[in-house]
Amino acid sequence: MSEAANVRDLLANSPTNWGRWGSDDELGAVNLLTPEAVKAAVGTVRSGKVFTLGSEFGTGNDPIWPGRAQTQRYNTQDRSSYTAGKKITNPGGTEYADDYVAMFLQGATHYDALGHVWYDDQIYNGYPADTTTLGMAKDAVLPIARHGVVGRGVLLDMARHFEVDYLAKATAIGLPDVLACLERQQVEIGTGSILLLRTGEIGSFASRDPQEFYADFIEPGINFSPELVQWFADNDVVSFATDTIGNERTVHESGAAFVMHAALMRNLGIAFAEILSLDALAADCAEDGQYDFLYAAGPIKIANATGAPVNPLAIK
Amino acid sequence: MSEAANVRDLLANSPTNWGRWGSDDELGAVNLLTPEAVKAAVGTVRSGKVFTLGSEFGTGNDPIWPGRAQTQRYNTQDRSSYTAGKKITNPGGTEYADDYVAMFLQGATHYDALGHVWYDDQIYNGYPADTTTLGMAKDAVLPIARHGVVGRGVLLDMARHFEVDYLAKATAIGLPDVLACLERQQVEIGTGSILLLRTGEIGSFASRDPQEFYADFIEPGINFSPELVQWFADNDVVSFATDTIGNERTVHESGAAFVMHAALMRNLGIAFAEILSLDALAADCAEDGQYDFLYAAGPIKIANATGAPVNPLAIK
Amino acid sequence: MSEAANVRDLLANSPTNWGRWGSDDELGAVNLLTPEAVKAAVGTVRSGKVFTLGSEFGTGNDPIWPGRAQTQRYNTQDRSSYTAGKKITNPGGTEYADDYVAMFLQGATHYDALGHVWYDDQIYNGYPADTTTLGMAKDAVLPIARHGVVGRGVLLDMARHFEVDYLAKATAIGLPDVLACLERQQVEIGTGSILLLRTGEIGSFASRDPQEFYADFIEPGINFSPELVQWFADNDVVSFATDTIGNERTVHESGAAFVMHAALMRNLGIAFAEILSLDALAADCAEDGQYDFLYAAGPIKIANATGAPVNPLAIK
Amino acid sequence: MSEAANVRDLLANSPTNWGRWGSDDELGAVNLLTPEAVKAAVGTVRSGKVFTLGSEFGTGNDPIWPGRAQTQRYNTQDRSSYTAGKKITNPGGTEYADDYVAMFLQGATHYDALGHVWYDDQIYNGYPADTTTLGMAKDAVLPIARHGVVGRGVLLDMARHFEVDYLAKATAIGLPDVLACLERQQVEIGTGSILLLRTGEIGSFASRDPQEFYADFIEPGINFSPELVQWFADNDVVSFATDTIGNERTVHESGAAFVMHAALMRNLGIAFAEILSLDALAADCAEDGQYDFLYAAGPIKIANATGAPVNPLAIK
Repeated sequence: MSEAANVRDLLANSPTNWGRWGSDDELGAVNLLTPEAVKAAVGTVRSGKVFTLGSEFGTGNDPIWPGRAQTQRYNTQDRSSYTAGKKITNPGGTEYADDYVAMFLQGATHYDALGHVWYDDQIYNGYPADTTTLGMAKDAVLPIARHGVVGRGVLLDMARHFEVDYLAKATAIGLPDVLACLERQQVEIGTGSILLLRTGEIGSFASRDPQEFYADFIEPGINFSPELVQWFADNDVVSFATDTIGNERTVHESGAAFVMHAALMRNLGIAFAEILSLDALAADCAEDGQYDFLYAAGPIKIANATGAPVNPLAIK
Repeated sequence: MSEAANVRDLLANSPTNWGRWGSDDELGAVNLLTPEAVKAAVGTVRSGKVFTLGSEFGTGNDPIWPGRAQTQRYNTQDRSSYTAGKKITNPGGTEYADDYVAMFLQGATHYDALGHVWYDDQIYNGYPADTTTLGMAKDAVLPIARHGVVGRGVLLDMARHFEVDYLAKATAIGLPDVLACLERQQVEIGTGSILLLRTGEIGSFASRDPQEFYADFIEPGINFSPELVQWFADNDVVSFATDTIGNERTVHESGAAFVMHAALMRNLGIAFAEILSLDALAADCAEDGQYDFLYAAGPIKIANATGAPVNPLAIK
Repeated sequence: MSEAANVRDLLANSPTNWGRWGSDDELGAVNLLTPEAVKAAVGTVRSGKVFTLGSEFGTGNDPIWPGRAQTQRYNTQDRSSYTAGKKITNPGGTEYADDYVAMFLQGATHYDALGHVWYDDQIYNGYPADTTTLGMAKDAVLPIARHGVVGRGVLLDMARHFEVDYLAKATAIGLPDVLACLERQQVEIGTGSILLLRTGEIGSFASRDPQEFYADFIEPGINFSPELVQWFADNDVVSFATDTIGNERTVHESGAAFVMHAALMRNLGIAFAEILSLDALAADCAEDGQYDFLYAAGPIKIANATGAPVNPLAIK
Repeated sequence: MSEAANVRDLLANSPTNWGRWGSDDELGAVNLLTPEAVKAAVGTVRSGKVFTLGSEFGTGNDPIWPGRAQTQRYNTQDRSSYTAGKKITNPGGTEYADDYVAMFLQGATHYDALGHVWYDDQIYNGYPADTTTLGMAKDAVLPIARHGVVGRGVLLDMARHFEVDYLAKATAIGLPDVLACLERQQVEIGTGSILLLRTGEIGSFASRDPQEFYADFIEPGINFSPELVQWFADNDVVSFATDTIGNERTVHESGAAFVMHAALMRNLGIAFAEILSLDALAADCAEDGQYDFLYAAGPIKIANATGAPVNPLAIK
């Protein structure tokens, strides 16, 4: 292919939130999730239905980014330990099972650290990219995990909008699509929301042939345009989550990769969550017409990490 | 020491919830978290303050149960990969960091599977303990993770009640203590609540000498008595979480170990969460006198596991 | 397919070495590697050429048995730690790199434990198969590792014998093939030898499409017949190693799987080594006509394991 | 403590082998292990006795360098999988056990990569230290593993020489000690030998209190002096192995750490092996007075690694 466009050039006039919350900020747009915002989000709850948005993993056939490894989970002890005489039953007769996991921290539903992706040797808020070396000294996922991501969630059901089970590979979603989908769903984006975009991809994974799934692997998703980035900025989107592995059309038409990670995560400090399962929530929203809800996510608090597994909750 | 009492005998007349939610149930008391219960819990939110209750791990000095290993987290790529020429910058100029973890699933703040502890060769709801072998085929943590644990949380601040920074090792908490603490805090246990009990132990870990911490290791916590178990049953406690590693005085005066795991988790199907950080929440409750709140926990959805890392949220 | 033959029936009259070296033996035919045998093997050395027979792994595309995972190796520290300020240079100015691996113990060139494969609930020498649970209490690879496998090696270059680069999938090697190859190579099997059989498979792996390699995956190799098993017994073969993953035509024509593991490893106590790289050694043997040599293998000494990585040496 | 001496200054006039085997060499002194050298070493074999020099690990209490983690080994399947119905018995009735390990590559007996330790931003033969980043691109352990380390081994039994079970912490061994020990043992160092030095430390580990073992942790061992380094250079020592974790008195009297790693490994290209078990070999040498033997080590062939587990063989 021809030379890719340079992300620096593409984003030369793109909005940023660097400095907005102080020169030492590592939390980004999650700063907008104030008690007032949380309280307002709580006000969206009507029926008390709960949807868990994590995807199931450790199956041996998890949807992972190419190059990452499947999660390995093994028992370290269980009932067989006692029957085989390898473990001594506790005083009184209790016994227990225990297990161990080896996995990529971004190998399941997870929040990205704000420093996960960068260009021009700088991560969110201007810290040197060298701070990522051997563990995130800045913009780790921990500040997000400490704060929690609780606020008003809005679902954009793009697969339903396009009337497909799942969006075809490389489907590019632009601002007109976003606006049309919001209009069709009769929901406002509001300010300071957590945006969930459903493509149907993760829900389709288990039934698709892995060879087919990963061939010419460009995921469907939001596609860089200055207008779309400005819309995220104007509406102060706090967090952006999808049912894809990479949260965007992973290669832009210009040939550049991860442009929206650069524009939204690195420049605006928007917290990304990936590999969500949105099908059950979406079906419910389609049924009752309520596309906003209380979103509550607690990424696990692991030090210095580029990402943290999470099982977000939508409470309607 | 003298022979330990047999847990089977201790619990001969202890209440159980086996069969209450069907013979194929694997969810236990979490079944009580209906939309109505969630909606009622949402009603406790006043200010919108959020507390994340996970403990930080991956520090190299995490509080773990003896015999479990410290979490190992390593970068698989970062900025140094590019400067050293080991990775090629993406088309357009973006780069990224990634990491890998090897850990015990119960090596950080986590939900236990209902089948994690048993006696008499049966786990919760009567499934054979053999189903735990090489992965939980029954009573795994996954059903809890799929459902989510969202409801009314109630904090019992036992350390404050006893006016100590943290409870001494082997401190035994009985029903009178629980009732006195609720009385002092002026909060009702209600029915179908998630009970959080603070001992101060986890908060003290980082400043204590590991040798001292683990010497004669009997944690402080609730201590088996028929009255205390009956109180949990009568009030339909859904989930029980503490800032200790083992959620109970881990050895009963009778010498039997994990009796409350047996009585509450295995018999009543109460979902246990362990190694929480409760100090910030407790300080806030002491200040505003509000000891109940919306509790929202999404343990990660890992298949066949004995436990799942989690970062629970308390929304006041 | 039709019902597979029962291994118990196939091996009803098959020879065994159970009890030959005592009822508490866990070493099997490796017992035959006495100082005298070693000294005799040393006598085969002529030129002093050394061939290392381990395969390279940790490449991201290692030849592994289906269901096992690729080896994951990550740096825990290196030069970038110091330049990024994450590690402090040692007093005096030295620095160092370190790394961590997560892998299947049989995910690279390895020795099998004698208890790795069984039937009829018994492993080599009659120990219950339950002793394998959660760690090999009997017939682990450790006794072999403690003893070392040093003796006279004999190469059977079957690929050259059949004049192919590598044997086709499911190629069945029988006793006539073994005898003809020995004859052609003008080498005696002798008694108490370590037999290395080359198929060319591992050497071809890197250049083959993984999809093709694993499709209808029946490896080429020795194929069960009573005559072939008897030949191994009569000649007291001590150890059997190949450049395949499974050391035999992994499914017999009768439909039964791993029959030669059952006949040779479980019944005769022959030590299996798998995933060797034999191409360079074979080329040299073809050139100088010397097909026997001093074989010296030290599997790593890991406790309770089903297998141990190794890099065997052939000294000619 | 006072400022440590600078290793660069200490080694300003120290001999090096950089360039001796070409500017692209990554094998170092192992180049000296030619077929002729191997053949000569084979000539030392008298009785055929074999000693395996690896230490046992995976015990839960392995001797490891502070900061490294204990090896974690877990079964992925075993007999219990079949009895619990988690695995299907193979056609014909065979079954098998399998396991997984997570460990530091230098967490057991191992060969160091020549690039493992450096100063002045350069590793052995002048490659930039940046080549270590995220995997050894130069001076990895793989070239040594491909070549094998086979030659004449010489044991220096320092513990016996000093008539102790094990050398006290921080015992400094100098050239006079080495020469006296050789003299007492009536063995010549020769040229191109593999030197094994026994301190008794690893053999004492299991019976010592870990607290005591690691307190004020300076291991006994060879201690930097220009004379001692020159002796290694003059005699073309190929490989240096000990029964300690760090192969030298890990802190020099000058305060500088790992000076002999710098002088011998980084400058002379001598291959280091660590954490060997030398007690049985030493007892035999004391008995028969034969302190040289055929040494044959095959470190496992793992790509890009800083070290490789090994179980070296001594054949007398």
